[in-house]
Amino acid sequence: MKKNSPPVDYAGYLQLDRILSSQAPKSVELGAPAHDETLFIIIHQTYELWFKQILHELDSAIAMFREDYIDEKNIGIAVSRLHRIIEIQKIMIDQIRILETMTPLDFLEFRNFLTSASGFQSFQFRELEIKLGLKTNQRVKYSQQAYHHMFTAQIQSKLVEMEKNPSLFDLLESWLERTPFLDLTGFNFLKVYRQTVEKMLLLEREAIEQNLSLSAEDKKERLLLMKATEKHFHTLFDAQEHEQLIREERRSLSYKATLAALFIHLYRDQPIVHMPFMLLSAIVDIDELLSTWRYRHALMVLRMIGRKTGTGGSAGFNYLKHTTESHRVFADLFNLSTFLIPRSQLPELPEEFEKELGFYFSQKGNDTL
Amino acid sequence: MKKNSPPVDYAGYLQLDRILSSQAPKSVELGAPAHDETLFIIIHQTYELWFKQILHELDSAIAMFREDYIDEKNIGIAVSRLHRIIEIQKIMIDQIRILETMTPLDFLEFRNFLTSASGFQSFQFRELEIKLGLKTNQRVKYSQQAYHHMFTAQIQSKLVEMEKNPSLFDLLESWLERTPFLDLTGFNFLKVYRQTVEKMLLLEREAIEQNLSLSAEDKKERLLLMKATEKHFHTLFDAQEHEQLIREERRSLSYKATLAALFIHLYRDQPIVHMPFMLLSAIVDIDELLSTWRYRHALMVLRMIGRKTGTGGSAGFNYLKHTTESHRVFADLFNLSTFLIPRSQLPELPEEFEKELGFYFSQKGNDTL
Amino acid sequence: MKKNSPPVDYAGYLQLDRILSSQAPKSVELGAPAHDETLFIIIHQTYELWFKQILHELDSAIAMFREDYIDEKNIGIAVSRLHRIIEIQKIMIDQIRILETMTPLDFLEFRNFLTSASGFQSFQFRELEIKLGLKTNQRVKYSQQAYHHMFTAQIQSKLVEMEKNPSLFDLLESWLERTPFLDLTGFNFLKVYRQTVEKMLLLEREAIEQNLSLSAEDKKERLLLMKATEKHFHTLFDAQEHEQLIREERRSLSYKATLAALFIHLYRDQPIVHMPFMLLSAIVDIDELLSTWRYRHALMVLRMIGRKTGTGGSAGFNYLKHTTESHRVFADLFNLSTFLIPRSQLPELPEEFEKELGFYFSQKGNDTL
Amino acid sequence: MKKNSPPVDYAGYLQLDRILSSQAPKSVELGAPAHDETLFIIIHQTYELWFKQILHELDSAIAMFREDYIDEKNIGIAVSRLHRIIEIQKIMIDQIRILETMTPLDFLEFRNFLTSASGFQSFQFRELEIKLGLKTNQRVKYSQQAYHHMFTAQIQSKLVEMEKNPSLFDLLESWLERTPFLDLTGFNFLKVYRQTVEKMLLLEREAIEQNLSLSAEDKKERLLLMKATEKHFHTLFDAQEHEQLIREERRSLSYKATLAALFIHLYRDQPIVHMPFMLLSAIVDIDELLSTWRYRHALMVLRMIGRKTGTGGSAGFNYLKHTTESHRVFADLFNLSTFLIPRSQLPELPEEFEKELGFYFSQKGNDTL
Repeated sequence: MKKNSPPVDYAGYLQLDRILSSQAPKSVELGAPAHDETLFIIIHQTYELWFKQILHELDSAIAMFREDYIDEKNIGIAVSRLHRIIEIQKIMIDQIRILETMTPLDFLEFRNFLTSASGFQSFQFRELEIKLGLKTNQRVKYSQQAYHHMFTAQIQSKLVEMEKNPSLFDLLESWLERTPFLDLTGFNFLKVYRQTVEKMLLLEREAIEQNLSLSAEDKKERLLLMKATEKHFHTLFDAQEHEQLIREERRSLSYKATLAALFIHLYRDQPIVHMPFMLLSAIVDIDELLSTWRYRHALMVLRMIGRKTGTGGSAGFNYLKHTTESHRVFADLFNLSTFLIPRSQLPELPEEFEKELGFYFSQKGNDTL
Repeated sequence: MKKNSPPVDYAGYLQLDRILSSQAPKSVELGAPAHDETLFIIIHQTYELWFKQILHELDSAIAMFREDYIDEKNIGIAVSRLHRIIEIQKIMIDQIRILETMTPLDFLEFRNFLTSASGFQSFQFRELEIKLGLKTNQRVKYSQQAYHHMFTAQIQSKLVEMEKNPSLFDLLESWLERTPFLDLTGFNFLKVYRQTVEKMLLLEREAIEQNLSLSAEDKKERLLLMKATEKHFHTLFDAQEHEQLIREERRSLSYKATLAALFIHLYRDQPIVHMPFMLLSAIVDIDELLSTWRYRHALMVLRMIGRKTGTGGSAGFNYLKHTTESHRVFADLFNLSTFLIPRSQLPELPEEFEKELGFYFSQKGNDTL
Repeated sequence: MKKNSPPVDYAGYLQLDRILSSQAPKSVELGAPAHDETLFIIIHQTYELWFKQILHELDSAIAMFREDYIDEKNIGIAVSRLHRIIEIQKIMIDQIRILETMTPLDFLEFRNFLTSASGFQSFQFRELEIKLGLKTNQRVKYSQQAYHHMFTAQIQSKLVEMEKNPSLFDLLESWLERTPFLDLTGFNFLKVYRQTVEKMLLLEREAIEQNLSLSAEDKKERLLLMKATEKHFHTLFDAQEHEQLIREERRSLSYKATLAALFIHLYRDQPIVHMPFMLLSAIVDIDELLSTWRYRHALMVLRMIGRKTGTGGSAGFNYLKHTTESHRVFADLFNLSTFLIPRSQLPELPEEFEKELGFYFSQKGNDTL
Repeated sequence: MKKNSPPVDYAGYLQLDRILSSQAPKSVELGAPAHDETLFIIIHQTYELWFKQILHELDSAIAMFREDYIDEKNIGIAVSRLHRIIEIQKIMIDQIRILETMTPLDFLEFRNFLTSASGFQSFQFRELEIKLGLKTNQRVKYSQQAYHHMFTAQIQSKLVEMEKNPSLFDLLESWLERTPFLDLTGFNFLKVYRQTVEKMLLLEREAIEQNLSLSAEDKKERLLLMKATEKHFHTLFDAQEHEQLIREERRSLSYKATLAALFIHLYRDQPIVHMPFMLLSAIVDIDELLSTWRYRHALMVLRMIGRKTGTGGSAGFNYLKHTTESHRVFADLFNLSTFLIPRSQLPELPEEFEKELGFYFSQKGNDTL
């Protein structure tokens, strides 16, 4: 342990001389000091610090998932790091309340000094979106221009470069594809699942048809809904249909990965699937909290500047509101719930299957025992 | 004080025998106990208790504003009661996290037992929306039917009846119209405000035209934005235009009330306007938190049931998402920020004006001095 | 699924007629309506509903741990139920803010009507404490009397009866004692741990003695601290010393259970120990949140009634403040950190050990392979 | 507005090159990278940024209260700035949860590298305590030494210097003493209050004596409590007794200021007292949240390092726990509740009194009408 390291003091360790001297309000510089500009600067700095921390965790998770083989121990570590991201996101949402103690009129006292500075120029936030898996073509356009426009040529090319690396989405997808859940001895998951669903839907249809308390019209309406449900399930029984939906940009996760994720959800009580389930849950949490943050941020901007254009000329509220929906990278994991069926309907896993899974995880891939 | 009141004990006072025996899980009744149904029941009961509390506060604020004259003391009390609503709303949002500890698969274990029960049937929530000021024709339709459809005939007529009473929106609007801010001696607010804005816009236009660092194209784009801004301000200079926007359902607050609210925002540092400003801020907070709650609730439903139809046959996520925007009663107060101008540009209030305002509030209406 | 169950509606399912008609303010009954009494009643009712939910989760965890053998699957379920308790506790703490919107003066308007009703009479809260593992003799006395005094004879005997059942503490302790971590082939945990610690302490002592930048006095002080640290570690090397500390009520967890818990902390990255580690962490979270809630509650009471005696004649703030420390059931798990040593110092587990552990968990106890 | 100011970009405005390059983990420097050290650095940096923001608000409030005359407008501004501090404090408490995602074992991986760095060395936190009003002699000692010991001689003398300036406590106290609430025409607050209290206590005593449902023993006990209550009230009727309590360090707010604060609480519905009441409430909130933060922080430290000494050799948990109580600067405002009496018992203010108050606030001190 501590050998010859020179003694550290608190202020030096945290580099407080730099951190605490990096607030230079424009309004002060321009001779019209606005009390609240300090808050505006400091809260954005804390956001950037948290972005850095999130990227630190995300990078480490991505590094783990770049390996061909990921042992269970590392999935556990990845989950705990994603949980840290979740706790940071909660604070990111809640601390909007601090900024809202600044009223629109207070903001106006220095807003014009900011000229073209805009939160859209946060490099780290773009980095975060890219590393999660957001692709340029999924992005909402604003000011009629691609989002790169906001950045210098140098930074633009850095972002473009970054997009070429596998994102968390990409890595999760191929990890899911590699898991052995779908192909093991004596248990064809898709076949079993399909049979169960079809039997379940048949019973439901019969229940509606034989329900005496429903009017003819109600029955018709319910059967229409049933039809929609059946059609929806069918997209999961047929790889072709799934591929078609991906081409139409209505789905993004590959067919095989989707089935593996569904398996994990349905059999999550199996110890062997427990960590993978926690992993998927954590990712869905992150996606949900990012959406919530975007929404709260959009509302706050609306309140602060109304429907005027944002600083830096961005389209403000409308742009932000659209991103809450269309920038969701893991929407397909969210939508998985649509395909869940009650535990009681599910067949048990064959015992050998559990053993095979156990060996997969604990014996470092295909090594001998 | 306490004279002959019989001694009370904790359990009796809180009627815990009733409260704690009102959880009857359907899954237990039907012989297939699902552990998580208790949570589902209890969390909804706490929501309904909080709705009751919110209505208690809202009713008392409405009662105060039904008076022809509202003294400053009561505005203070109304503000503190609205602040209580705000604290409750924060908990309503945060406690969604408790429900999210129930996974979609756990929900499936009893979801089908609920048949037609649905959160859309919360009478108190409808009551809350109505009392805030939501009108039937503003409501998003679902299941192709008016929302009354969900309720029995008796409850429907109660809701219709309730809509006839003045809402918080209505009462706030007429209170704003009655405030003396616009008409007092020697200070025509609209005229002063308009002159200030026009001068400000002129300077801004010149600044763009003379800005050497902007390309011709950039200038053109910015001047286009300026034009939009000018047009936007103009809707506030002209009662006719405002009325037209109301007819088109793009605005809802009356012209006079809008001007009074703007006055309050711009001169909020004046002690006499302080309470009115806190009142408007509290209402905007409530509106914002209600939107946030709707959004979080929509996301949670999406996660829980995917894009299936909700319990009770509602359209689920899409319906809920739409209400976050279109059910906002006080959107016009939010949008006021668009019309704010920097404090430094504002002319001071004439001194007599302050006195007149002071008397208005402290001398109970039109009494002589 | 849903067979012949009669249709349910929202209000009926939640028994809202009962829930929403169980608020009977004393101040109204006695002819001096106090607006805020409704809040006082409703917030306590939501607390009691959450207590019921917590007990529902706790009971299910206790039931699992009463079994002689607890399979890994159930530990996973227990952990997720304890996580639900944690989310509820966060809300219990945060919603104190709602109650604090009632000022002390507002409380005074109905406080005297409550006569002897007191939160100390919450049966469910006592039940919760008992089921976690609080013993009567650990309880802080108030009003110079045992806490049972607050309850009727019938309830008192119920509480006494309840204390005879094994608590979560008891069951966790015997589960820890039963885990095979300490005794397996080729790895004597205590011996390995003791050697590592002693080596580490020796190096630390040398580092101080040879540190040129320390003054003689500083060295002396540090070596004194070292001595205390060494003595502290020693209590873990010697079962006798541990037993002595238990007799002196300075420790409560048995020697064997303490060592097993320490093992789990130190080797928590091993997949096989992952769930046990999450279990211990969740319990420490619950303990920490309960302490925080007690502390926040005590502060709120102090603010509300100052240093007067509480309703029901309790000693108010001082009593509550003491319970934050002395009613902590799992303090020993908290204090485990004192005995942790850096991962890098720890010897690896022998490979057979991991296998033995794996079989222990996955092969249902002592069954053959 | 924006005239010739050079264009600003987001990263430049926030000085992100400095902010985001100020994290230099010791563990990396010393060749044993610990993943979690980044979090440890970043969270402390965000705390320091928030401390800076709090000091920015506190300084501005202190500056206002240094004036001989504080107009109502400024009290309003001070209140809104204190509310901002409150929102920051909530985040400071909640973000402890982020740090708690680091387990004790993870902390151990770099803890020894920190050698003598300790949170006790946060200069800004000491500054905050001093500016609120904490005096050196009130501080809990640790390591048997005064807290200055932690700092270099230069910083020590800065802290000593700072203590000589009036703190928020000092300024609030003298502002309260200067308010005209106690001495105005025709209304001697102390006399009126005393009479009311004595009558109230008499009735209460009679109620106990005549209560047939109480046993002789219960009566005796209650009358004893009554006696304590009477004695407590008496300390407020007699300036001498109050001074004595101050000498014994059991009270800190001066007699006159205490009475003025009590007046404000009791007559807070009067518009003229509304802002002063919000001011006192905000200060009590800040005190309460600071205590809560200290308590949560202490628990977190206990969990992280157990009962070992803290980094930098501090006594860790015990020290921190003691500060939660003894470092409370505004405890007397908290305890005011003890002296409140029900609104219904209070005599109305004479009408001229209200006018006098109105003039005091709106006519800039002693100017003529």
